[in-house]
Amino acid sequence: MKAWEKNVRKVEPYVPGEQPKIDGIIKLNTNENPYPPSEKVMEALKALENDKMRLYPDPEAVELRDEIAKKYGTKRENVFVGVGSDDVISMCYMTFFNSDKPILFPNISYSFYPVWADVHKVPYKEVEVGPNFEIIVDTFKQENGGIIFPNPNAPTGLSLGLDAIEQIVASNQDSVVIVDEAYVDFGTESALKLVDKYDNLLVVQTYSKSRSLAGMRIGFAIGNVALINALNDVKFSFNSYTMNYTSIKLGVAVMDDWDYFEETRKKIIATRERSKEELTKLGFTFPDSKANFIFASHKTVKAEYIFDELKKRKIYVRYFKKPLIDSYLRITIGTDEAMDKLFEALREIVA
Amino acid sequence: MKAWEKNVRKVEPYVPGEQPKIDGIIKLNTNENPYPPSEKVMEALKALENDKMRLYPDPEAVELRDEIAKKYGTKRENVFVGVGSDDVISMCYMTFFNSDKPILFPNISYSFYPVWADVHKVPYKEVEVGPNFEIIVDTFKQENGGIIFPNPNAPTGLSLGLDAIEQIVASNQDSVVIVDEAYVDFGTESALKLVDKYDNLLVVQTYSKSRSLAGMRIGFAIGNVALINALNDVKFSFNSYTMNYTSIKLGVAVMDDWDYFEETRKKIIATRERSKEELTKLGFTFPDSKANFIFASHKTVKAEYIFDELKKRKIYVRYFKKPLIDSYLRITIGTDEAMDKLFEALREIVA
Repeated sequence: MKAWEKNVRKVEPYVPGEQPKIDGIIKLNTNENPYPPSEKVMEALKALENDKMRLYPDPEAVELRDEIAKKYGTKRENVFVGVGSDDVISMCYMTFFNSDKPILFPNISYSFYPVWADVHKVPYKEVEVGPNFEIIVDTFKQENGGIIFPNPNAPTGLSLGLDAIEQIVASNQDSVVIVDEAYVDFGTESALKLVDKYDNLLVVQTYSKSRSLAGMRIGFAIGNVALINALNDVKFSFNSYTMNYTSIKLGVAVMDDWDYFEETRKKIIATRERSKEELTKLGFTFPDSKANFIFASHKTVKAEYIFDELKKRKIYVRYFKKPLIDSYLRITIGTDEAMDKLFEALREIVA
Repeated sequence: MKAWEKNVRKVEPYVPGEQPKIDGIIKLNTNENPYPPSEKVMEALKALENDKMRLYPDPEAVELRDEIAKKYGTKRENVFVGVGSDDVISMCYMTFFNSDKPILFPNISYSFYPVWADVHKVPYKEVEVGPNFEIIVDTFKQENGGIIFPNPNAPTGLSLGLDAIEQIVASNQDSVVIVDEAYVDFGTESALKLVDKYDNLLVVQTYSKSRSLAGMRIGFAIGNVALINALNDVKFSFNSYTMNYTSIKLGVAVMDDWDYFEETRKKIIATRERSKEELTKLGFTFPDSKANFIFASHKTVKAEYIFDELKKRKIYVRYFKKPLIDSYLRITIGTDEAMDKLFEALREIVA
């Protein structure tokens, strides 16, 4: 080993879901939206100006923050934007989680939470979910340096009611509480309603799921001005221009077409509910997902076997080979047509 | 102060150069390219597919890394890409600068270097440039946990020869040495020639200056495979999908039109040399810039006064109110037409 290698940071690299570069596959492995973004996105793309490309984008991303604020009935000063909600949350760790006390998050949850803690040298403690994967409000009633959890939770899809969220936020007013609402638009009540009441609450959402724009990397956070200012200060000390010209413009275009958003999210919810029926018939059990995926375990056939068999048939779902969840598959809700092909394949595999 | 505010990170936010949102200004303050990107960028934009937007972009950004590798005669495995060179360098700090010994950089240099050190809790020591702002090779011959400097340096525009760079790299083989070549294409020999010889050397470049694509936020680093792997591991543990779909595609299109790049960078170099003559006639002195800006001080008129007067005339240059450099203005090289307007205004102001 060379001397300089001793100072290289050792990390456990996160392995993202496969993005296979082959055609004709059915991709139900990374919770993307099966519907393309609104046609307004293509219009916005065509309206982009070559001469603007040579200039730095607006570091404040004012246009995008104003549009988000307008749609959510708040102000620019209450909105932070980043390169996907991963960027937003990572920035939150750097900004808010500087206590010696551990931050808390569920032991079954988004796999990036412990990774960011390691990267940013933040102590953490995983609180245990219940026997049916449910988040238990009382586990968050202990000393901590911050709290983060997704609602609905990933990869289970289970959601917490607003009362439960409020209990967590209200009983932790000395900490910043982050509700990661990546999947909220598929049938969960948002904690945005509580943002005016609790200055320690930050709600994070993303364009990557319900907004059909994973390719553009846009996430945002809404909270009180002090939280947003603190985030912006850290962001500006780091990389002032993270949101590129196209993200800003396309992000505005997507928010602008609310009808299309309603139409597609309702279609996905309907397909999810139908998928629950089909999966039940096929012998699967699962938590009652409110997200755009179902976390399903078969009564008799092993998850890894099903995963491999589906892959042979060019159908990609997600399998986490980890304790507690290694008998489950996380299946993204695709179009009705894609789901029918999945059920057909599953009928062969689990028969 | 609320209890949670005690755990909020305190940072000295970087103040980026103004991006005024008014029309009709002459913008010579943030070292952008005065020429729009190649028409191939607009073609690439029109070829983007709506249905690809809903999918996560390739986390490996293979297409872009392959194109950069091809153009620079190296391999994908030797290329790292990020959201502007700011993102690349910040990631380098996290990845390579984990020693207890201070990293070294010049005391007159890119203002983000100490800021990233603070953000990532990296100890640092500024080494002094000479009386004419020149970087002194011997100042880098002391114990350190890493080295970074721009070549040409910013905001002076002075460049170091390849021999000097090699001395720094060769005498610091226990540290990672980063040469920040944001401005290299305007007339400095690149250290890329040394990358095969020294495994501790990483060269960082950007699309924001010579490639006319500041709006898209693309930076890259070239170095040996071990360095690039380490960077990718940290990146993947942080945010796997930082390069969005449009950046990847437009970044390829720009690299693909090398002739246009040659044409525009030569035009900028010619305008810079003519500007040196004009500024000399107007009573300015300056280091002999090899970048797309000139760091100029007037013999009798104060920099801040000139800055304010230019602004009244809607001409924006950069003024740093900092010790050692507060009698200088950093003037970005614009089109010949823009520079003529600057000279005309300066004739009024310094007369």
